[in-house]
Amino acid sequence: MPTVFNFRVKEKAGPLYKQLALYFQQEILKKHLKAEDKLPSIRELTTDLNISRTTVLSAYQELLSLGYIKSVPHIGYLVAFPENFAKQTIVSHSSNDVPAIKYNFSNNYIDTNTFDTSLWRRYLSRVLSTPSTLAGYGDPQGEFYLRKVLAKYSYDSRGVVCTPDQIIVGAGLQSLLDIILPLLVHGEKSVGLEEPGFPQAEQILKNFGWHKVSFNPENFSLTTVPRLIIISPSNPYKGSNLNDKAQKNLIAISQLPNHYLIEDDYNGEFRYLATPTPALYSFGNSEQILYLGSFSRTMLPSLRISYLVLPQPLLPMYEKVKKNYNQTSSTIEQLALAKYIEDGCLAKHVKKLRSLYKKKNALLRKALKKYFRSQVTILNFTSGLHLHIAIKSRYGADVLASKALQSGIKIIPVLGGKTEYPEFLLSFAGIAEKDIDKSIKALQKVFRN
Amino acid sequence: MPTVFNFRVKEKAGPLYKQLALYFQQEILKKHLKAEDKLPSIRELTTDLNISRTTVLSAYQELLSLGYIKSVPHIGYLVAFPENFAKQTIVSHSSNDVPAIKYNFSNNYIDTNTFDTSLWRRYLSRVLSTPSTLAGYGDPQGEFYLRKVLAKYSYDSRGVVCTPDQIIVGAGLQSLLDIILPLLVHGEKSVGLEEPGFPQAEQILKNFGWHKVSFNPENFSLTTVPRLIIISPSNPYKGSNLNDKAQKNLIAISQLPNHYLIEDDYNGEFRYLATPTPALYSFGNSEQILYLGSFSRTMLPSLRISYLVLPQPLLPMYEKVKKNYNQTSSTIEQLALAKYIEDGCLAKHVKKLRSLYKKKNALLRKALKKYFRSQVTILNFTSGLHLHIAIKSRYGADVLASKALQSGIKIIPVLGGKTEYPEFLLSFAGIAEKDIDKSIKALQKVFRN
Repeated sequence: MPTVFNFRVKEKAGPLYKQLALYFQQEILKKHLKAEDKLPSIRELTTDLNISRTTVLSAYQELLSLGYIKSVPHIGYLVAFPENFAKQTIVSHSSNDVPAIKYNFSNNYIDTNTFDTSLWRRYLSRVLSTPSTLAGYGDPQGEFYLRKVLAKYSYDSRGVVCTPDQIIVGAGLQSLLDIILPLLVHGEKSVGLEEPGFPQAEQILKNFGWHKVSFNPENFSLTTVPRLIIISPSNPYKGSNLNDKAQKNLIAISQLPNHYLIEDDYNGEFRYLATPTPALYSFGNSEQILYLGSFSRTMLPSLRISYLVLPQPLLPMYEKVKKNYNQTSSTIEQLALAKYIEDGCLAKHVKKLRSLYKKKNALLRKALKKYFRSQVTILNFTSGLHLHIAIKSRYGADVLASKALQSGIKIIPVLGGKTEYPEFLLSFAGIAEKDIDKSIKALQKVFRN
Repeated sequence: MPTVFNFRVKEKAGPLYKQLALYFQQEILKKHLKAEDKLPSIRELTTDLNISRTTVLSAYQELLSLGYIKSVPHIGYLVAFPENFAKQTIVSHSSNDVPAIKYNFSNNYIDTNTFDTSLWRRYLSRVLSTPSTLAGYGDPQGEFYLRKVLAKYSYDSRGVVCTPDQIIVGAGLQSLLDIILPLLVHGEKSVGLEEPGFPQAEQILKNFGWHKVSFNPENFSLTTVPRLIIISPSNPYKGSNLNDKAQKNLIAISQLPNHYLIEDDYNGEFRYLATPTPALYSFGNSEQILYLGSFSRTMLPSLRISYLVLPQPLLPMYEKVKKNYNQTSSTIEQLALAKYIEDGCLAKHVKKLRSLYKKKNALLRKALKKYFRSQVTILNFTSGLHLHIAIKSRYGADVLASKALQSGIKIIPVLGGKTEYPEFLLSFAGIAEKDIDKSIKALQKVFRN
């Protein structure tokens, strides 16, 4: 029986059980341990290494599942024959593998310094001090108080007129799609999405057997348009907003019989340079537009509350099934959010963000011009939370983005850009004002090499 | 143009816009307002009644959608012709319609006095004071810290050995089914559920085209057993727990090639009278059992955090799609829960609940005997959070349950019971210890009449 004197716990090398499993895997692959060799018993390892039984069990289970070892009754764990070994090997979740991100220009991230967490904490605390509301599973459609507040907020902020009965609250777009897609059952399951697509929505659509069609709101035929369109008027991946022609086209689609438009109003609040565009819902045919709002950009991405405005004609179908769905959003957060919005805190915060983003937007453009000079072209800066840029370089956008990531700078490459040069989206929501200049300086250094 | 001098806002009669819409609907149905009569303009109503524009718009939109009024450009809102009126009428969400529940014996409810909300608030606050973790969308699989803690907790509390990589966190069973059902794609989509079924799971299964088969773990043929079985060993709806034979059968199923068992371990922690049963996962074939744990019973139903232990062989498929799923559970609550469990607070709370429930269980049985005497039979009291009883009566279980509800007592009728008498489940999780005697006294009074 081999001793494990070589095993040493490493700091920051991932969970202990993984390290232990990895150790044995290497011992086996290096043939220090051969087929039919007995491994230490769980008790021995627990005692010798002074680690928990669960850690040892987890390590052994990992090795078992990969075929490196086998469990033999009354004997213990033995090394298996090499032909049983999985192709797959254990990878430790070492935090050394991925460089730490110093400057994050991705659009899934926000600078929490801009959000008043102590104020938000007070709202959460207030809910927790009236615990009677937390005793049940809550309203499957979302707390009525929140829905009432959202009906007003969506009108005030985006011109969306609806009743609380039309609002369904859920933990993100995907939870809401899981509920509403089964309601859109009549006819062909084809769905149109703008390029470059929307992986989170597409996964759910695929799960429900919908067939994706690439859709361009500026150029399509009304006779062959898919029965369902999902559109994000301020979609950051596209790098540009809907123009007037596209808007008119979409409104025409919302009038077609048996056609539906899901309007994901992501970033809708952040139009401070161009003319603010009201939601399509507010001037299209609201009987066929499903409006989606969320708070991941206006508050915190980690707050999992989104809402959907269901058209009146779909309500009876939803009413029939709604009791079969448990609410996915936390009741505590729903009630805190309702009060936060009702007190005007959200409107105030959005106003503050708008002015901050306007400033960051200008600073970022200035820094790009300063360090990249004629090498950079700013393709779009009017869509709220990010710049769309092109940089003259002999490398592709994805190569440059991964070079940047190696240096701790996260930028989003635009695949299939409009220019001959690599294009990127730089979101400034996650970067502190004071870091803008130095981050672009650092980026230029990366690109130069 | 009619004046609306009769309209009065009622306290506790539901949202204002509904009251206003209801008022006009009644005026129209009573023919006080006739076809082509003009309704007051939005501005007039806003001023006259001193209510918000949104309220008026919402009321009018409700009336429009039901066909009671029509909008004529340049003129305003007119009463429509009666043939356009919807069959559907406006129902106000009046809190007077439904009697307030005084004693809640349903199993969707817990007595929050048993939960230390101020302690939980401190855990939430601690997370909020390190806001950097809240800036992103979080790990799609669930925060690693929570998964690590859950791997240990599920072993300590239920004998479930797994690695954090196998754990997927989500906002409830349904969110998790939405992710895993598309992974179980090979073969026929038939799923076995015990009677009387499980509406929340069935809705999701139906959405994905699965065909439900009634399944009895004590009596079935191994050759025709559905490819997927969903089982709740402590399912409160059944009124009884799995016996040894059923357990052995389920373990046999977990060995069949290409068969899967989803073990919903709801209430699993609450076995304090009978011998505690470890999770099936812990002694079945864990390569084909998907274990589901939640905190709705041990903490608060409003806390939307569940977790699933995915068998090792399904991991590669999940890894491929996981980045396409956003996490549904709140990051704040996930991190607070992780620390709460790690500090031993959950184990301590469960221990406290066990002893409280044991006491309530005895008190409830005593009260039933005291007031119902020979009229009551206690069929089962060993399954943790509820009693399964039969009451001699000439009425059916559902009639008696609705009579009780009218008197403010919520009890759950068991449909298709085993005895000749109406059967009920009485959960004591939601009822205060001090209310047990008087609630049963009140229930006996209801049943007597």
